Amino acid sequence: MTNKVPYKIYLNEDEMPTRWLNIKGFMKEKPDPLINPSTGKPCTADELKAVFCDELVAQELNATDKYIDIPQPILDFYKLYRPSPLVRAYGLEKALDTPAEIYYKFEGNNTSGSHKLNSAAAQIYYAKAQGLKSVTTETGAGQWGTALSMAGAFFDMPVKVYMVKVSYEQKPFRRNVMNVYGADVVASPSTTTEAGRRILAEHPDTVGSLGCAISEAVEVAASDPTHSTRYVLGSVLDQVLLHQSVIGLETKAALDKIGRKPDIIVGCAGGGSNLGGLIAPFMAEKLEGKANPEIIAVEPASCPSLTRGTYRYDFCDTGKICPQAKMYTLGCDFIPSANHAGGLRYHGMSPILSKLYHDKMMTAKSYVQSDVFEAAVKFARIEGTLPAPESSHAIKGAIDAALECKKKGEKKVIVFGLTGTGYFDMKAYDEYLSGRMTDYIPNDKEIGVE
Amino acid sequence: MTNKVPYKIYLNEDEMPTRWLNIKGFMKEKPDPLINPSTGKPCTADELKAVFCDELVAQELNATDKYIDIPQPILDFYKLYRPSPLVRAYGLEKALDTPAEIYYKFEGNNTSGSHKLNSAAAQIYYAKAQGLKSVTTETGAGQWGTALSMAGAFFDMPVKVYMVKVSYEQKPFRRNVMNVYGADVVASPSTTTEAGRRILAEHPDTVGSLGCAISEAVEVAASDPTHSTRYVLGSVLDQVLLHQSVIGLETKAALDKIGRKPDIIVGCAGGGSNLGGLIAPFMAEKLEGKANPEIIAVEPASCPSLTRGTYRYDFCDTGKICPQAKMYTLGCDFIPSANHAGGLRYHGMSPILSKLYHDKMMTAKSYVQSDVFEAAVKFARIEGTLPAPESSHAIKGAIDAALECKKKGEKKVIVFGLTGTGYFDMKAYDEYLSGRMTDYIPNDKEIGVE
Repeated sequence: MTNKVPYKIYLNEDEMPTRWLNIKGFMKEKPDPLINPSTGKPCTADELKAVFCDELVAQELNATDKYIDIPQPILDFYKLYRPSPLVRAYGLEKALDTPAEIYYKFEGNNTSGSHKLNSAAAQIYYAKAQGLKSVTTETGAGQWGTALSMAGAFFDMPVKVYMVKVSYEQKPFRRNVMNVYGADVVASPSTTTEAGRRILAEHPDTVGSLGCAISEAVEVAASDPTHSTRYVLGSVLDQVLLHQSVIGLETKAALDKIGRKPDIIVGCAGGGSNLGGLIAPFMAEKLEGKANPEIIAVEPASCPSLTRGTYRYDFCDTGKICPQAKMYTLGCDFIPSANHAGGLRYHGMSPILSKLYHDKMMTAKSYVQSDVFEAAVKFARIEGTLPAPESSHAIKGAIDAALECKKKGEKKVIVFGLTGTGYFDMKAYDEYLSGRMTDYIPNDKEIGVE
Repeated sequence: MTNKVPYKIYLNEDEMPTRWLNIKGFMKEKPDPLINPSTGKPCTADELKAVFCDELVAQELNATDKYIDIPQPILDFYKLYRPSPLVRAYGLEKALDTPAEIYYKFEGNNTSGSHKLNSAAAQIYYAKAQGLKSVTTETGAGQWGTALSMAGAFFDMPVKVYMVKVSYEQKPFRRNVMNVYGADVVASPSTTTEAGRRILAEHPDTVGSLGCAISEAVEVAASDPTHSTRYVLGSVLDQVLLHQSVIGLETKAALDKIGRKPDIIVGCAGGGSNLGGLIAPFMAEKLEGKANPEIIAVEPASCPSLTRGTYRYDFCDTGKICPQAKMYTLGCDFIPSANHAGGLRYHGMSPILSKLYHDKMMTAKSYVQSDVFEAAVKFARIEGTLPAPESSHAIKGAIDAALECKKKGEKKVIVFGLTGTGYFDMKAYDEYLSGRMTDYIPNDKEIGVE
């Protein structure tokens, strides 16, 4: 280390990115297209426009533009909570006694508590610009629903959130936060949709599932007789990775300011929204042959899409009403073990990241959750911030990379994504601290490997 | 407005304050001293050292130094979560259609969720530097206990928190956060102290009180046979205002950067820690006759120490074991209405602020909580951040000041303190949104006015 790097690197407002980066624009071989299961052919723009708003469909299908301008109202919204800090983890480096430099991009400094707001703002803005009257979505733990509610309040767009019933009941505070932002939050399954009524008739005592909540939210959007409602989704889709590229672009600008280039980039991966955003400009350089950072996706051993899934076409949702995507998947019927805490529970993976992983542009590893929580508690005590369980997968990955550097005496620059805070995940922390947390690794049959 | 002010003004690391500001050093007439109730005379340093650690006693009694250097380890800790942003509330200005400029200093971007960490870090550091083995404290809603736990983890100092039983049971997540940082959290009253056992024997079903928790925490510190335990307190004391001056010093430095001087400064006031810190450098200028900003303390109508209390010697605690302070008080037996949400429930007020208020260097006003929550929800929807109920008193005060500017066509600069976030106060938000919140204003008899 030549010059002294500050603990936190903030960009000035005029240094903030004004364009998103479209990874697909840099890929020579593009990801395979979404398939309409009823036609067996690639989804057309018109088919997608029945569910998603027009501009977002255009972004979803845009595989050529390298950059897309961020509209000014979205930039203005970003300024409410961005730039997020790039933090030098001096304490962690010292505790690990590693020669590596460790940096993390912290996306938790906003009320939604995560990076989800970056795409929520964009999706709500485009819906408003199109003159739509409302949007629907589903939420599990509640981060995405909260982010969407915040953006809805800002752009004055009504938001209806189908919240998995078990979360609705166990996390009333999350629901209340969405209410503060004016969102209509419905426990799913509900009697407000045909899908919900059918499921309730068959399973009156069900606690709900993400798959069911998606079905309800999509039904409400698709069946609006005035066709002025659309469905929005917080991860997996190409458009979401596009919006989340603001994370990586800020990270790169901040590293440039201090004259650093990342050797290793680590991010947690559920649907891929955070990881895809964090790595965007670095992957672009890698695809162009200008740099060659090691990029590591970290996922839970209980839901190991990349590390143990297969690369094939599969439904994006459990209810099998959404398009099929070519991706690493555990099978759309896969339900992660109930004892798994936090997010990253998605059976598949962003098609863009799946393709890049398949092309060996990045690697992946998985950890059991007790190891992840051990890293989370260590991080909280040293660096101050209480991390979300999802983000803590990246912490664990970064710690292991830093220890590897120590073993080899390598002075590498490690960057990881700290996607959010864990204030609403205290039950899981309590389980860990009291020794009641157990780990689960699915067997081959459960993940569809014969 | 001549030049365009960014949404958020961050100081660079080398612009952060390296000294605290001691308001007492600027006051010609000093606040009256703490009185030892058993001698009837001013508390001596030795008497205070039985409960507080040595350096903090020195700071408590220091009425002459204008500035006190911040030790490097505390500066390093501050860098983990400071500087906090000074935010230009463009959205709020527009929504209010006011010619005023509104700024807020946001102290909630850390895991404790409030400004309390500024003093917790200092108090834990001095305890560690003195070679003490542990510290004790009480906590109600849990912000102070969380802050102290975080600092304890960082400086490797064991922390024991007596948490009011009703909060311990109703807010298990707060308790769990403290556990993550390694604190020992005990529901008060407990069987671990004589005071606790006595109260439990008399009132086996009690839900506890702050007064009782203080008694337990002080007893543990004072009765340690090795004399290596001390008690720490998160508000009211002069030393706490000293540490919190970092808020105001950063605010002033940020305003200087954009060429602004505050005309009106608004802060919420419970024990006075946040307000005293926010106004520190501005009050110093006012005391020196260099500037004359209007300074407004905002308190709840249900606990109106400044606006309706009397200025006299009173006990600092309900249990009457602590020294007596000359302050605005509702009487140490005053218990705020149970329907009052959030903090600011203290019967008294910082002796420094009480003296300044008595000397007409600042004004005060009170609001009922439904008006405060109305302002909170408005703020959340426009500015994004979900405010703590305490902080929302300042929001309401700032909004009213901005509307007054609108009426008079005045282009004033308003600065208020946004002390924290409301993630752990969703029950109160829910009551407000569902119309179940009621307001309470104590009658004269309840506040000891005959």
